[in-house]
Amino acid sequence: MVNPLQRIGILTGGGDCPGLNAVIRAVTKTALYRHKLEVFGIEDGFLGLVQNRIAPLTSDNVSNILTLGGTVLGTSNKCDPTRYPIENGDADPQFKNVTDRCLEHIKHHQIDALVVIGGDGTMSCAANFVRMGVNCIGVPKTIDNDLEGTDVTFGFATARFIATAALDRIHTTAASHHRAMIVEVMGRNAGWIALHAGVASGSDIILIPEIPYDIDKICEAVLARSRHGKRFSILCISEGAAPLNGKQVVDHYDPTSPDPIRLGGVGKVIATQIEDKTGIETRTTVLGHVQRGGTPVPEDRVLATEFGHAAIEALMAGKKNRLIVMQGRTVTDTDLLAAEGKQRKIPLDHPLVKAARDVGVQFGD
Amino acid sequence: MVNPLQRIGILTGGGDCPGLNAVIRAVTKTALYRHKLEVFGIEDGFLGLVQNRIAPLTSDNVSNILTLGGTVLGTSNKCDPTRYPIENGDADPQFKNVTDRCLEHIKHHQIDALVVIGGDGTMSCAANFVRMGVNCIGVPKTIDNDLEGTDVTFGFATARFIATAALDRIHTTAASHHRAMIVEVMGRNAGWIALHAGVASGSDIILIPEIPYDIDKICEAVLARSRHGKRFSILCISEGAAPLNGKQVVDHYDPTSPDPIRLGGVGKVIATQIEDKTGIETRTTVLGHVQRGGTPVPEDRVLATEFGHAAIEALMAGKKNRLIVMQGRTVTDTDLLAAEGKQRKIPLDHPLVKAARDVGVQFGD
Amino acid sequence: MVNPLQRIGILTGGGDCPGLNAVIRAVTKTALYRHKLEVFGIEDGFLGLVQNRIAPLTSDNVSNILTLGGTVLGTSNKCDPTRYPIENGDADPQFKNVTDRCLEHIKHHQIDALVVIGGDGTMSCAANFVRMGVNCIGVPKTIDNDLEGTDVTFGFATARFIATAALDRIHTTAASHHRAMIVEVMGRNAGWIALHAGVASGSDIILIPEIPYDIDKICEAVLARSRHGKRFSILCISEGAAPLNGKQVVDHYDPTSPDPIRLGGVGKVIATQIEDKTGIETRTTVLGHVQRGGTPVPEDRVLATEFGHAAIEALMAGKKNRLIVMQGRTVTDTDLLAAEGKQRKIPLDHPLVKAARDVGVQFGD
Amino acid sequence: MVNPLQRIGILTGGGDCPGLNAVIRAVTKTALYRHKLEVFGIEDGFLGLVQNRIAPLTSDNVSNILTLGGTVLGTSNKCDPTRYPIENGDADPQFKNVTDRCLEHIKHHQIDALVVIGGDGTMSCAANFVRMGVNCIGVPKTIDNDLEGTDVTFGFATARFIATAALDRIHTTAASHHRAMIVEVMGRNAGWIALHAGVASGSDIILIPEIPYDIDKICEAVLARSRHGKRFSILCISEGAAPLNGKQVVDHYDPTSPDPIRLGGVGKVIATQIEDKTGIETRTTVLGHVQRGGTPVPEDRVLATEFGHAAIEALMAGKKNRLIVMQGRTVTDTDLLAAEGKQRKIPLDHPLVKAARDVGVQFGD
Repeated sequence: MVNPLQRIGILTGGGDCPGLNAVIRAVTKTALYRHKLEVFGIEDGFLGLVQNRIAPLTSDNVSNILTLGGTVLGTSNKCDPTRYPIENGDADPQFKNVTDRCLEHIKHHQIDALVVIGGDGTMSCAANFVRMGVNCIGVPKTIDNDLEGTDVTFGFATARFIATAALDRIHTTAASHHRAMIVEVMGRNAGWIALHAGVASGSDIILIPEIPYDIDKICEAVLARSRHGKRFSILCISEGAAPLNGKQVVDHYDPTSPDPIRLGGVGKVIATQIEDKTGIETRTTVLGHVQRGGTPVPEDRVLATEFGHAAIEALMAGKKNRLIVMQGRTVTDTDLLAAEGKQRKIPLDHPLVKAARDVGVQFGD
Repeated sequence: MVNPLQRIGILTGGGDCPGLNAVIRAVTKTALYRHKLEVFGIEDGFLGLVQNRIAPLTSDNVSNILTLGGTVLGTSNKCDPTRYPIENGDADPQFKNVTDRCLEHIKHHQIDALVVIGGDGTMSCAANFVRMGVNCIGVPKTIDNDLEGTDVTFGFATARFIATAALDRIHTTAASHHRAMIVEVMGRNAGWIALHAGVASGSDIILIPEIPYDIDKICEAVLARSRHGKRFSILCISEGAAPLNGKQVVDHYDPTSPDPIRLGGVGKVIATQIEDKTGIETRTTVLGHVQRGGTPVPEDRVLATEFGHAAIEALMAGKKNRLIVMQGRTVTDTDLLAAEGKQRKIPLDHPLVKAARDVGVQFGD
Repeated sequence: MVNPLQRIGILTGGGDCPGLNAVIRAVTKTALYRHKLEVFGIEDGFLGLVQNRIAPLTSDNVSNILTLGGTVLGTSNKCDPTRYPIENGDADPQFKNVTDRCLEHIKHHQIDALVVIGGDGTMSCAANFVRMGVNCIGVPKTIDNDLEGTDVTFGFATARFIATAALDRIHTTAASHHRAMIVEVMGRNAGWIALHAGVASGSDIILIPEIPYDIDKICEAVLARSRHGKRFSILCISEGAAPLNGKQVVDHYDPTSPDPIRLGGVGKVIATQIEDKTGIETRTTVLGHVQRGGTPVPEDRVLATEFGHAAIEALMAGKKNRLIVMQGRTVTDTDLLAAEGKQRKIPLDHPLVKAARDVGVQFGD
Repeated sequence: MVNPLQRIGILTGGGDCPGLNAVIRAVTKTALYRHKLEVFGIEDGFLGLVQNRIAPLTSDNVSNILTLGGTVLGTSNKCDPTRYPIENGDADPQFKNVTDRCLEHIKHHQIDALVVIGGDGTMSCAANFVRMGVNCIGVPKTIDNDLEGTDVTFGFATARFIATAALDRIHTTAASHHRAMIVEVMGRNAGWIALHAGVASGSDIILIPEIPYDIDKICEAVLARSRHGKRFSILCISEGAAPLNGKQVVDHYDPTSPDPIRLGGVGKVIATQIEDKTGIETRTTVLGHVQRGGTPVPEDRVLATEFGHAAIEALMAGKKNRLIVMQGRTVTDTDLLAAEGKQRKIPLDHPLVKAARDVGVQFGD
């Protein structure tokens, strides 16, 4: 039987994530070397599909990109071809469904299937093309590690590494100065980075979205350490941590606000509260974008290579509309949209939460 | 019911491994904080048990050790209480079984169970005490990741990280100079470090003990790269890689040899052969002990914390003579001696071997 | 002649700085090993002198601290014995001069000279004791590298290393997303960290306190890059950068403010302005305390060792009230108060500024 | 006056060194942006000049290379156009002076001056062209930091960083095991890397070529530490360290030898001697090429940028045949051949040697 697949397209959507280039490289090399397919790179996510910025990817194009952060294909954060802005300069923007234009470009390049690397939003866009008959294989991407259906995502290990390194550095500052030090890490909906980096760094207090925090218990924990002669407390806090009976504090830009620099994530809010209630000097560091840039740690390079390879293998096995995932220690695949809108939060009885509590970590409760 | 456990002893045996202190800390803190046990640290592995160098471990003793390499308890490489050398200075050493002496010391300190952190040899020693009625919980330790019964061991991720960082650095030297560069990494019997670091660094050739190498195929791969205009080849080689129909080359010291510095592991042997057969300049770096020292990467700190915690939880659940292991993503336990003498080699059809081949990696065959 | 020196005291004051422990170690080992002096560690800066928290430092106390961040002696930020708060809980605090108490403690421990490691504030306190007849040798400390009289201070190289590593990571995020990325680094009065880390990371725009910025020129530079097809701009900004005809934006906590989390340093202000004026998405990372914690880079370990050693050598040479400094490549000493209140700002014609401009860096003008 | 310079050529010769690309970038950008010159890159050192592999360097060619190890121009180790091998395959190679051919290529491309980045050998080749009337500006390159006439060379700080990181890791292995651990670092003729990395890592014994070692004193130092209860000794040894009354042990390949893998540098020789004489287990790590590959540390990136910039500034100032150097903290220039054949060894009374001795370091004497 002739293999019906001859040409594949590949794109990356959504936010940055260490390992994207490793996926692109593995997809391209496996397709070229192993299966003699042609590979077309689509620039800037679905935006490049709309604008027909599509070009062949050769072996040379993916040489030496394994260790690079970012994505050589570029990405776009919020391009949805079903709602494409047609008059940008207008005060009242108009949107148009440009899916047809994308399908033409796919047809023009004779692309038989798309490998789509991205998060929730990107997979939703992909689903639209699936409905139009385009075979899409998804490779999930989130440094937050919070995708339902896969036990781990690439990028997470790198974020954990960077957060832990920062916490290690903060540790000595705290110890010299009798201070509480807060490090705010990524994780809007799930606390995987904070949990892992907190345990890895020996943080005293870990706050995650899954366990709403009682500020009085936190302050009491800080004071208790002080009473026991400890000179400092380290707090590792997810950006999405929220108080009991309260809501998330979001650090955002609002250029239309009369006070456009009114800022301050949950870390700064808690710092102020600890200072007020305990009198102990408290400082906050917000790690921000350093967590999602730069060279991936080896774990992520390997995982991304496995995921990229598996995407092509799934295609060659005749599979359609699947999402590559890791279950246990096995790379496998699931329905492309199985995970849509579902977040893998940390269960309250997660063994690592229990282990952390037992070695003395205070959570929000 | 009264908990029969009140005092536990803990020791570390065998070679160095990043994460040992994280296990010691997790065992001690869980025992002290969660279960109000007393913990006794035994110095230098079973040697300290023979010599009664045993002292209480407090919370302060294990503060700030999470990030430290090595083991604060010390270790001894080859102490077997059933064969303890009694006359060291003698040309003809005599051995004696000093198990009774150890049992006295255990009894003297009223130690109810031992947590034994170590490799194969350490577990064999522990088995001897099990037969004498001492409950031992084992925590497996090998940076080589080659223990049967567990999908991963702590220390491996750190070794992989260090090996990959070295390969990343070597890469640019090779590219500037039209050279083949060899990095010899740890792994006498199994090639996990070479496989992972090789894939993570984009090595061109990976040689592991599980796939005997044909030197002609390696040289051909190096030449083929040269013909395709690639200026360099990177080889990542397990110290235990062996030629087809040949045996391992061991880099060892033999002070009784007339030529006591005759040295050279497999990396240097292969370098000479590549230079001879291809005329391409080839250099070797042997990473050695840097792979097993220094601060553990976050992944190993978390895993070691989980293993240490699980050891105490197993004890408190009334379990006896178990080995803590990771199966899939779950920490569990198995028979203490289940893994004795069994090595977890890389299966030839391992998915990562297949993925590596498909992205263009040359193995020994 | 009998050496009149037999006992020295040592203290660290002011903010954290990588290399403090290396100084303490070098002072202590040189004093103990080379000159058979006794060394007394004073806890928490001058606060420990007021409170008589003073204890002998042995060789063991300073073993293994060379690579540690922070200070094993502890520090206090604002303890001035001439203005010591006597009633802390009071709404209207009272201050008292407790210099006499300090002199008693010095006398009680028979301390012949003090080695004082700190910044401007610490040296001013030391000057008070000099006037009372206590010989003080100062070792300057500032990660900002802005002390008049010395060409370099320890801690700076580590801050530069951390800032550069963050900029390296940010680079890839910017490139993938068509963004301007701002990294705000330390340097309230002088821009050494921003200048060096900016050049080291290939930043496109570097803003330092010495060159007030014209926001229109910055925006034009960002737009010009965009017009030339560059997908991103990296801005490395000193926290003390200020606009032309404007003043510094200080990111501070004011718990009495009705809006206690109203925050935002200069980086966030500029980000908002760039977004407004260019429409290009702009994100800010504020590095904060990670720059002053953790293990020092080798350069700082060596420099701190030289400074600590030189402090004892100055004492043994009979010198009084000197500050250890580096001039060119030579460690020497100057008057203890020579640098008081003087900041070493970057001259506008500094060769590195010129080199940076010539390779295409845009400064504030 | 019309600037007589319009086109410059640039090449890199000799071994790898972190910072080469930063020099290439600074030369190119300063020439293009600041002075509107054209720049031609010559591939693989003087070999590319012989073979006319010369092409324009654009701004794009040097984008994103600042942080890369190696050299994008390539290098050749031993190409001397006055002795160019004409019949490679021959058992009895013939050499020919191909300088004329090089001059033709320079003339053909209308190159007005060469920027030559390299070590001693490269500058000697350059001198030949100077005699033929070609203006050459040299940028010195050696990770060993041993060039007469400059206080520091780029690459050294990176080598020191890598060596120190390895020593830090080795430290914990030694401490856990009652071992002596040797790390052999680069430095055939001068011990700068060993001295700095040894001091930075707190090594106990530092052996450098400048101070021949007495093996008995070393063994005594190891034993003395053992007697004082220290569980380990760390030795940092230059590859060029030599015994009193003995000669350097060179670890080399000799494929014609009957025993082609007979290897072992000075580190392994000393290890064997320590084991023999003290009975203390001793292990050696030879760092090798990892010291000269990979991304430069920030210090080297800045220094290389300054050197590259200064090379163009020297040319534009009408200077001829100069070598860019650092004197004190000032970048300046000296005669191109001033340093030829002269090595900057560590003076026996160097302040850092004295400081090291005073904090307890044992040197070879």
